[in-house]
Amino acid sequence: MALKIKHLLGLKDVCKEDIITILDKADEFRKILDSDNLNVKDLAGKTIVNLFYENSTRTRISFELAEKRLSANPVNFSPSVSAISKGESLKDTVQNIEAMKINMIVVRHAASGVPKFLTEFSDSVIINAGDGFNEHPTQALLDIMTIRQKFGRLEGVNVAIIGDILHSRVARSNVWGMRTLGMNVTLCGPSTLMPQHDELLGVKTTTDIYKAIENADVVMLLRMQLERQDSGLFPSMREYRQLYGLDCEKIERMKPDAIIMHPGPINRSMEIASEIADCNRSVILDQVTNGVATRMAVLSLLNS
Amino acid sequence: MALKIKHLLGLKDVCKEDIITILDKADEFRKILDSDNLNVKDLAGKTIVNLFYENSTRTRISFELAEKRLSANPVNFSPSVSAISKGESLKDTVQNIEAMKINMIVVRHAASGVPKFLTEFSDSVIINAGDGFNEHPTQALLDIMTIRQKFGRLEGVNVAIIGDILHSRVARSNVWGMRTLGMNVTLCGPSTLMPQHDELLGVKTTTDIYKAIENADVVMLLRMQLERQDSGLFPSMREYRQLYGLDCEKIERMKPDAIIMHPGPINRSMEIASEIADCNRSVILDQVTNGVATRMAVLSLLNS
Amino acid sequence: MALKIKHLLGLKDVCKEDIITILDKADEFRKILDSDNLNVKDLAGKTIVNLFYENSTRTRISFELAEKRLSANPVNFSPSVSAISKGESLKDTVQNIEAMKINMIVVRHAASGVPKFLTEFSDSVIINAGDGFNEHPTQALLDIMTIRQKFGRLEGVNVAIIGDILHSRVARSNVWGMRTLGMNVTLCGPSTLMPQHDELLGVKTTTDIYKAIENADVVMLLRMQLERQDSGLFPSMREYRQLYGLDCEKIERMKPDAIIMHPGPINRSMEIASEIADCNRSVILDQVTNGVATRMAVLSLLNS
Repeated sequence: MALKIKHLLGLKDVCKEDIITILDKADEFRKILDSDNLNVKDLAGKTIVNLFYENSTRTRISFELAEKRLSANPVNFSPSVSAISKGESLKDTVQNIEAMKINMIVVRHAASGVPKFLTEFSDSVIINAGDGFNEHPTQALLDIMTIRQKFGRLEGVNVAIIGDILHSRVARSNVWGMRTLGMNVTLCGPSTLMPQHDELLGVKTTTDIYKAIENADVVMLLRMQLERQDSGLFPSMREYRQLYGLDCEKIERMKPDAIIMHPGPINRSMEIASEIADCNRSVILDQVTNGVATRMAVLSLLNS
Repeated sequence: MALKIKHLLGLKDVCKEDIITILDKADEFRKILDSDNLNVKDLAGKTIVNLFYENSTRTRISFELAEKRLSANPVNFSPSVSAISKGESLKDTVQNIEAMKINMIVVRHAASGVPKFLTEFSDSVIINAGDGFNEHPTQALLDIMTIRQKFGRLEGVNVAIIGDILHSRVARSNVWGMRTLGMNVTLCGPSTLMPQHDELLGVKTTTDIYKAIENADVVMLLRMQLERQDSGLFPSMREYRQLYGLDCEKIERMKPDAIIMHPGPINRSMEIASEIADCNRSVILDQVTNGVATRMAVLSLLNS
Repeated sequence: MALKIKHLLGLKDVCKEDIITILDKADEFRKILDSDNLNVKDLAGKTIVNLFYENSTRTRISFELAEKRLSANPVNFSPSVSAISKGESLKDTVQNIEAMKINMIVVRHAASGVPKFLTEFSDSVIINAGDGFNEHPTQALLDIMTIRQKFGRLEGVNVAIIGDILHSRVARSNVWGMRTLGMNVTLCGPSTLMPQHDELLGVKTTTDIYKAIENADVVMLLRMQLERQDSGLFPSMREYRQLYGLDCEKIERMKPDAIIMHPGPINRSMEIASEIADCNRSVILDQVTNGVATRMAVLSLLNS
């Protein structure tokens, strides 16, 4: 049941069999999490460094909980209080940490490609917890896991991803994974926030949210980065909310059994109306629980 | 031996039986702490989130040590590096943490009522580690535990609490708990730092420290918040020290077997003279040890 | 096999037998680290506080990993978010931490003598993780361990230490330890960065790097503190690099089997040319691994 991949750098190059193996293992861990019987020893005696160059309490805690529940030793390494500030290079930092005899590195970094770069000189298993605008593979895996739980299948499921596609590593990882699994993806957002090049071949794109959601089984909203408003890439929060925010009016146009997803943290009344975030079609908190299960699965499978 | 309460939000509504059950359990844990034989498994496999919105290394470490000594998994969550700064609400943050399948939340927050608010939507056990000017129940429990150890009884013991009563959650929790236990409390401080309303019914109040301490078995000094000097609520540090600081002259007026307490951290030469903090009538360091034992007791009893 | 010392404050007063006991134990732990079979229970149930008043992710993580691999409970205490900022004294802070029933304190502080000061009122085992310009004994022990591994002996080995000797606690600890072990030390740096007093009796000094390295078996470079450039103690980075930076030209003058050491983090192209840091004569990453083993040895031996 070992994976073909040795690291989890992104979903672009992960085959269908590996994804299914991870999802199946994640389902097992979800059952264990729900049972509150957390006596899992898969990573006992293993040391995992959480190397977060970007702040992300949510993802970091999810990984840390996953690690502890596998009986691993997590070490959190925050660059702001680190040798980095003394001018040490990323490579030197990682080689030094690794010389302390660690087993895995979970890395988040603002620059695309950093996890892959680490594999060039590191003997540890590398797991990408988000790199620049490139990928965030565990987020996509937990999204896909959640969809499979709700619909019992993946092939042919229609997914609409709404928002700032251009800057979203979540969207990119989901596109790669969902295409591999035979799912149908429609990307939707303001034209200034859509990728211009044709790298995302095999997906539909539209700037009209009504077209995106009308046949969707899954409507996945992305977090709008409020700080991007100053960039001139979209007119105003108010206009964005009117055109792309999922509200009570737009939800009427969705299929009756379609579900609503969001990677969090949500901006209430921005990309999602507050009552919709909390309604029974929203699976947002399920995604969070599945996040821990997915990360446990990835950590456990890449260790073996 | 289970408690009637499901959470520890404050001592205002905790009955005598529950307080005594916690104190008895804390005495047991104190013996274990003194024996250095720390093989307690009460919370093995349980995850506890320490959600501290206010800085408090001392209280946070005391809880963290209590959790580790019960074999729980503590996760520290510091809001400054969190999604909070991205504008997420307290409710969304807690629901997200909770979706990661945790068992208990220890929360400190600058706003009164936050622990109670959490119980409205959370399935976890909530423990208040200090909320605004409202309550700090584990501090009061450790104070009462220390008093019982010294005098062998609680009923009828006379306690004088000296300082900024108005802004002290420590004083409020102690008043509620001590009244329930039949202890006699006298509150003392400058009139500008005393509560004006009559909510603290059943306690004596005075602005004259000599009246407060003359019959006291316990003199509990509160930490003076030096930053409050700019608020105009009291004239000067010098005047405060002269009128309310416990020094060698005032200690002469105390009963010979009266003990001196302080929740820490102390301001030496301010509310307490340096030599008095270190004298053999001071039980300040005992309070610190009992703090770990008390928190172990609360965590263990609320889990069962 | 117990040590004569009760604390590790520095190497100045540690006898040869104790150093050899630590080195032998560290060799054992190095084998365990290399085997990835990390089931060591030496400190199970023990609580160790890492009290770092100076930022040092590298040393702190090395200690934390050593502690976890001995099955201890580490508690990290960072002064910036602590009661210190509320004006509490070092003594009060330590007495409070200690009242929570801890076993050992690993302390780093900008002021020389702080670890020794702690022993005056603390019942815990104190380990110096660097104090001001005074000592950094675990660094020197790991350096000496690395040298013994490479040469199979210590007596008579010639060591050149190059750089800012004046401000280096690494150099000072190494001088004390190496003299005790019968090693020959030559200190080398700009005259403004050399100690003026004769406390370092028994070592050779020179301002000429070629004289320092020509007979050296070990060339140990110190990190140049770039912020010191503004102090007027040396002309410029460029001049320092030319005169004292180890580059391809200077390495030609070293003995063919001499090794290159550095306590890290390195300034590439400053005190050491980049290609030399990575060459096969550099044992810099070995030092890092031995650092964990050395700290495990010190912690384990001082506990028994």
